[in-house]
Amino acid sequence: MTELLPVAVLGARGRMGAEAVRSIGAAADLDLVAALGRSDPLDTLVSAGAAVVVDLTVPDATADNVRFAVEHGMHAVVGTTGWTVERLADLRSLLGSTPSTGVLIAPNFALGSVLATAFAATAARYFESVEIIELHHPDKVDAPSGTAARTAQLIAAERSAAGVPDAPDATRDQLDGARGARVDGVPVHSVRLRGLTAHQEVLLGGPGEQLTIRHDSFDRASFMPGVLLGIRSVSHHPGLTVGLDGYLDLQAGPRP
Amino acid sequence: MTELLPVAVLGARGRMGAEAVRSIGAAADLDLVAALGRSDPLDTLVSAGAAVVVDLTVPDATADNVRFAVEHGMHAVVGTTGWTVERLADLRSLLGSTPSTGVLIAPNFALGSVLATAFAATAARYFESVEIIELHHPDKVDAPSGTAARTAQLIAAERSAAGVPDAPDATRDQLDGARGARVDGVPVHSVRLRGLTAHQEVLLGGPGEQLTIRHDSFDRASFMPGVLLGIRSVSHHPGLTVGLDGYLDLQAGPRP
Amino acid sequence: MTELLPVAVLGARGRMGAEAVRSIGAAADLDLVAALGRSDPLDTLVSAGAAVVVDLTVPDATADNVRFAVEHGMHAVVGTTGWTVERLADLRSLLGSTPSTGVLIAPNFALGSVLATAFAATAARYFESVEIIELHHPDKVDAPSGTAARTAQLIAAERSAAGVPDAPDATRDQLDGARGARVDGVPVHSVRLRGLTAHQEVLLGGPGEQLTIRHDSFDRASFMPGVLLGIRSVSHHPGLTVGLDGYLDLQAGPRP
Amino acid sequence: MTELLPVAVLGARGRMGAEAVRSIGAAADLDLVAALGRSDPLDTLVSAGAAVVVDLTVPDATADNVRFAVEHGMHAVVGTTGWTVERLADLRSLLGSTPSTGVLIAPNFALGSVLATAFAATAARYFESVEIIELHHPDKVDAPSGTAARTAQLIAAERSAAGVPDAPDATRDQLDGARGARVDGVPVHSVRLRGLTAHQEVLLGGPGEQLTIRHDSFDRASFMPGVLLGIRSVSHHPGLTVGLDGYLDLQAGPRP
Repeated sequence: MTELLPVAVLGARGRMGAEAVRSIGAAADLDLVAALGRSDPLDTLVSAGAAVVVDLTVPDATADNVRFAVEHGMHAVVGTTGWTVERLADLRSLLGSTPSTGVLIAPNFALGSVLATAFAATAARYFESVEIIELHHPDKVDAPSGTAARTAQLIAAERSAAGVPDAPDATRDQLDGARGARVDGVPVHSVRLRGLTAHQEVLLGGPGEQLTIRHDSFDRASFMPGVLLGIRSVSHHPGLTVGLDGYLDLQAGPRP
Repeated sequence: MTELLPVAVLGARGRMGAEAVRSIGAAADLDLVAALGRSDPLDTLVSAGAAVVVDLTVPDATADNVRFAVEHGMHAVVGTTGWTVERLADLRSLLGSTPSTGVLIAPNFALGSVLATAFAATAARYFESVEIIELHHPDKVDAPSGTAARTAQLIAAERSAAGVPDAPDATRDQLDGARGARVDGVPVHSVRLRGLTAHQEVLLGGPGEQLTIRHDSFDRASFMPGVLLGIRSVSHHPGLTVGLDGYLDLQAGPRP
Repeated sequence: MTELLPVAVLGARGRMGAEAVRSIGAAADLDLVAALGRSDPLDTLVSAGAAVVVDLTVPDATADNVRFAVEHGMHAVVGTTGWTVERLADLRSLLGSTPSTGVLIAPNFALGSVLATAFAATAARYFESVEIIELHHPDKVDAPSGTAARTAQLIAAERSAAGVPDAPDATRDQLDGARGARVDGVPVHSVRLRGLTAHQEVLLGGPGEQLTIRHDSFDRASFMPGVLLGIRSVSHHPGLTVGLDGYLDLQAGPRP
Repeated sequence: MTELLPVAVLGARGRMGAEAVRSIGAAADLDLVAALGRSDPLDTLVSAGAAVVVDLTVPDATADNVRFAVEHGMHAVVGTTGWTVERLADLRSLLGSTPSTGVLIAPNFALGSVLATAFAATAARYFESVEIIELHHPDKVDAPSGTAARTAQLIAAERSAAGVPDAPDATRDQLDGARGARVDGVPVHSVRLRGLTAHQEVLLGGPGEQLTIRHDSFDRASFMPGVLLGIRSVSHHPGLTVGLDGYLDLQAGPRP
């Protein structure tokens, strides 16, 4: 008989936390041993015997939560934002003294989105042209989206490292904004449409061909497979990993 | 036995003209009786017995060509640009005295493009949000494309006539250009990508649903079915028609 | 001051009904005067003074509900299935004696879906090739979807009426099923994918061009704009109308 | 001053060959030293001083051509089909005795297509559902396409290796062919549409999200960047490489 992995959720009353509680409860190989809200004491993690702590709280609380987990020998999977360079440095130094403990901090747990970004960055060196279209619901306040900006930065870095010249563009006569925003030189177009949730398309073009990588996020459930993958894998990745792509096998084919 | 329709092409050495010559030659119900270049005399149209003249010449020549055709009792199908309001008025007045002659002047002969624009305009009144993405090869000098600008204008006119409020958009924090150009209030995004020819997508969104109307033009051949439709139909549409949509039946269902 | 339109909902405890109650309650020009469940007496419609009755009940109840409404001078908007040819004939005969009363029976209230189907049928006569791809969640038991089958039938009818020959297809060597199912000669491909809801794409191809009409239904909310349109319009359409497209203006441009 | 790389083309009068001659001629770092047709003697390769030989001939000739090149110390880039297991074994054994010579045999030189297939295979283990839609011109005789079949096989192998269960599918009631063909258990749908060239979409779905990887091949020019990449890289890949993906860096991020 396989032993179940004991997991605790912090921020269990939030929307993401409640979803995580449901998903962990439904996973046959995981045992939800604690589901804590804001005012619950962290000591419960110890008494409950958690091996992995999932932090889905708020920027003000996450650093202390993770410190507590690491100091008590628990791995941590973190979806909370607010991790500054300083906080990451502190965490890395703490992890130096507990070499077998793993922490995953992921700004995005949607597997499809993480893969799409990685594929786009990989492909970007092989095409003359690349542009990004991101499409969201009309209540979103920022444009372009954070994911689109990060994707553009990664693409630009890959092209620069590979010595790819700027994409051709003969536009001389244009209406303001027609060619989109530029993020590190990559055009990004933001569509806002009632009915949509969160969608992104990277278009890559070369002579006679186009490669399109599109990700659609329809609802919050899309984060759960990534959270579960993090929980199951964190003990095999000691130290600090930033970004779920560090846990993904990004190359097909035979493995050793 | 059905009689063939005698057709002449003006501008037969140009790229569009050459394509038209080929297509007319291949059509079983049409008889190509003349294919004239710049220096050939228009009188040939008469001696050849053309019933329909296809004008694919240049802005400086087209008005005289069409006048000649109409004065000699021939119908005309025109794909040349350069028809100003004044020229159109002159032509209308000329046609007033030959009530059975038809002239079609079409800025766009791609059936799919004409249909896509008409459908987008029809649908625009029924959705909260509408945006246009047009995608072209990177050697194009203007952005947005003329077709996208016209589509936006038609959409805006339909929404205004139907009293549709502005599309919702909570964007407060944006990079310059992210939300595209505005044509009569409709956001238009222009993508330029090596490998593409001419493509356009109209996205319409309402609560819980999206309607997308996309047209891809892969090469010049896309204009020929529209040219042939014009040739075959022009005698049934006396007077001046501007736009191929005037010859299309835009509503499915039983016809009287 | 504008008078509000008094509306009643039958089947108010069902999923569609509850959504309709919410939408009508939120509409500034409508007054929800009754929201009845299965065991509530229909007489309440009269005492509440409903002018329009929305029926979102079950096949066994809908015919009696609509009869009651019509007999009491109320218009009806019906989203329930189960209307056989016989029931429709009975209803038409009943409506013959109350010439100012309108009834709308619509199998599909998603405006985008209704428009997409109408556009596809209209366009189908102008292209050599046409195929349908429908994509749904993997819990769906039938393939192709009812909407795809109806779309294919309408497309086939338009093409047949216009004398369009069969789409070209040189396939000689194929795996079973590769070319999809045939509905009245139109290839239909059914995709089943976790994460999706209900989506349909009609692809139309001619020399050098493609026209794509896609509809995405993300959730039940997509039916509400169509229900509201029905409620607001039913009094202007006396007699029986089957299909929401009967209430839509399917041609852009100036109206008389 | 950089030295130019001397390149020869075999099959220079064929369609692919002619395109290669043009592309090599236009590349600033390459020197086209020979362009041979069927009846030209291979000795010309030696007298011309070719360092890399591009073989775009026919199945009957390619093995002898490559043997000649390798025996004369030239690298080879091969786009010809017809390489059986036996021929590959012979070539490997020949290369064993000239350890610094490289040969690339690639069934597909379109970078976008090769990348799309690799990405699809990589992603397939992370999603519940996966299906393939391939779209081609209606003169194609086989369905599904060879590329789609290979993609399905790679996807199936990845999912099997990772222990991914079969995709969910509740279909009970279906028209023949609706759910496509099955290649190693992966549904493949083949669309044939006038106006198209060669296109493929891999759809991957998980809870609340979809990942789509699409490749469009618009014309033969799409093979040239891959051919040039092969020519420039073959000397760095001694021995035999089958498939252009062996020359691509399929993972983004810092390189050692």
